[in-house]
Amino acid sequence: MRAALMFGAGDVRIENVPDAAIVSPTDAVIRVTRACICGSDLWPYRKLEPGERGRPMGHEAVGVVEAIGAEVRTLKAGDLVVMPFAFSDGTCEFCREGLHTSCVHGGFFGSDEAGGAQAEAVRIPQADGTLFALPVGEDDALMPSLLTLSDVMGTGHHAALAARVGPGKTAAVVGDGAVGLCGVIAAKRLGAARIIILGRHPRRVALAREFGATDVVGERGDEAVALVRELTGGLGASSVLECVGTDDAMRTAIGIARPGAAIGRVGVPQGETIPASQPAFFDNITVSGGPAPVRAYIEELLPDVLEGRIEPGRVFDRVIGLDEVPAGYRAMNEREALKVMVKP
Amino acid sequence: MRAALMFGAGDVRIENVPDAAIVSPTDAVIRVTRACICGSDLWPYRKLEPGERGRPMGHEAVGVVEAIGAEVRTLKAGDLVVMPFAFSDGTCEFCREGLHTSCVHGGFFGSDEAGGAQAEAVRIPQADGTLFALPVGEDDALMPSLLTLSDVMGTGHHAALAARVGPGKTAAVVGDGAVGLCGVIAAKRLGAARIIILGRHPRRVALAREFGATDVVGERGDEAVALVRELTGGLGASSVLECVGTDDAMRTAIGIARPGAAIGRVGVPQGETIPASQPAFFDNITVSGGPAPVRAYIEELLPDVLEGRIEPGRVFDRVIGLDEVPAGYRAMNEREALKVMVKP
Repeated sequence: MRAALMFGAGDVRIENVPDAAIVSPTDAVIRVTRACICGSDLWPYRKLEPGERGRPMGHEAVGVVEAIGAEVRTLKAGDLVVMPFAFSDGTCEFCREGLHTSCVHGGFFGSDEAGGAQAEAVRIPQADGTLFALPVGEDDALMPSLLTLSDVMGTGHHAALAARVGPGKTAAVVGDGAVGLCGVIAAKRLGAARIIILGRHPRRVALAREFGATDVVGERGDEAVALVRELTGGLGASSVLECVGTDDAMRTAIGIARPGAAIGRVGVPQGETIPASQPAFFDNITVSGGPAPVRAYIEELLPDVLEGRIEPGRVFDRVIGLDEVPAGYRAMNEREALKVMVKP
Repeated sequence: MRAALMFGAGDVRIENVPDAAIVSPTDAVIRVTRACICGSDLWPYRKLEPGERGRPMGHEAVGVVEAIGAEVRTLKAGDLVVMPFAFSDGTCEFCREGLHTSCVHGGFFGSDEAGGAQAEAVRIPQADGTLFALPVGEDDALMPSLLTLSDVMGTGHHAALAARVGPGKTAAVVGDGAVGLCGVIAAKRLGAARIIILGRHPRRVALAREFGATDVVGERGDEAVALVRELTGGLGASSVLECVGTDDAMRTAIGIARPGAAIGRVGVPQGETIPASQPAFFDNITVSGGPAPVRAYIEELLPDVLEGRIEPGRVFDRVIGLDEVPAGYRAMNEREALKVMVKP
């Protein structure tokens, strides 16, 4: 089968690889009907050391079950499913608590362990726990939004929960990527009265406004902090969604946080430390978040997608075939595309 | 009057200073009946650059109101009061939320702004909001425990709340100082089923056991992490109280935290950054805490002190007069004394 492999920074290729196949009796194999490129894929795209062996890429997909292992109980060939970016058994104590990304038998797609979703097919470990069967057909008009349940919409929701967004609160969202925009949707959905997005890309902040952002701050660093403080009576936002992952973004997040605020961070941290420890301490700011247990959130978010109350699929602004994936990375890296959908 | 001033690392002197006096109509002046030396006083004792002007020291006290300003409404001369380490108006939006340490008219004792409590008397800004009148006499046998409500017991409670201690949970406490020991009391009080203290000082960990610690880990760093993991089925503690403030202590706290755990940090951070950002992120660990709004907690903790259900006053193992304060600092710095009470 064909699959996207990354051989180093800027070097993504479509290669022929062995077909995805059942290895363990709890596996399934899905044929990928939709995949996408994630903002987090851009970190290795900028930094990965060149190597002989390519890294399988892609961790977001909707697909059709093609084969199941002997111990798979809840799925059958032909089911249309969401594949969350992490696999999980659904039964361990972390899964039972809703923290599927810490499953004791879990792991992540887009890895040697489980293969990538920017491919014709993927092997799904712990299929019963991992996959979520959808009640629609594979070409449903809602497919873009359904695909976001595999990562970005669940991740924005996780950021909002970790930032303790609630009715009437003021939320600030750092970052205007797909996750930041889904964070706006999530903050609105959870009742935030005011949603300030920090971003400067005109099309993206326009979409943020359509999703519910009430204010846009295009400045960066100290200027951004000063502006958000001005917008919030000098005090800062009670909930901050950090959707980037750089030290600068976290420093801004702490700078715009009200005393007693919570920051939900979902951008994969690129630094070894969290900056501004003392300011965060003296203001009793909580730093929370991590990889979103999106599997836990599908059930809650799905009705809103199916009934059109939220439209996270609008973050996709380009659709490509598998062969165009290398160009898709370039477009996202150069911020020409917000988020690229792949139809293998 | 006489007061302790710190002129640089290791240089604490008792000097004659102008009498504490009403400056603003919302002030009170208290005669200090009990004060103490705080673990956080040891940071400047180790690091403060030498200077001509001494820094007023001490931020924990019980005292008797001697004078009140014209606008003070709830206090009168002769009242015995707890002085929390921060002053606060009790009416701003942060105070109303219970975050008195972020009061918009607030500040901290042991500063040029408000003077120190290791003195014969202190000026109390925002007296109505700051002071808490006690229903006992100034030489009550419970005085040591009542004095801890000015800081260490409230701070241990804050750590436990920030670490989300609850019934049946496993809490780990990093640090066997007075705050760590009060953290053990707080964790027990909030229902933790298991309380692991990380400390190596024999008298302190013995006291921790009397306060409710179920396990003691005397090792440090990676060894401590391995041992706590062993004690918790390989998973770590769901609540971690970080009661030291060094990078090493925070690294240990993150290392022993279970995925999804919360760390309540109350040790004043000595580093500019929080270490182990990525491990904390990938395990969805929450880092919370800061200066404890002890004023908010007195009402809740006082009945337990008055009725003898908690005995945080047992952390005091030395009582000295004001003239002996320099020796008290030495004793605490050399860990000869756990916590020193001062009777001016």
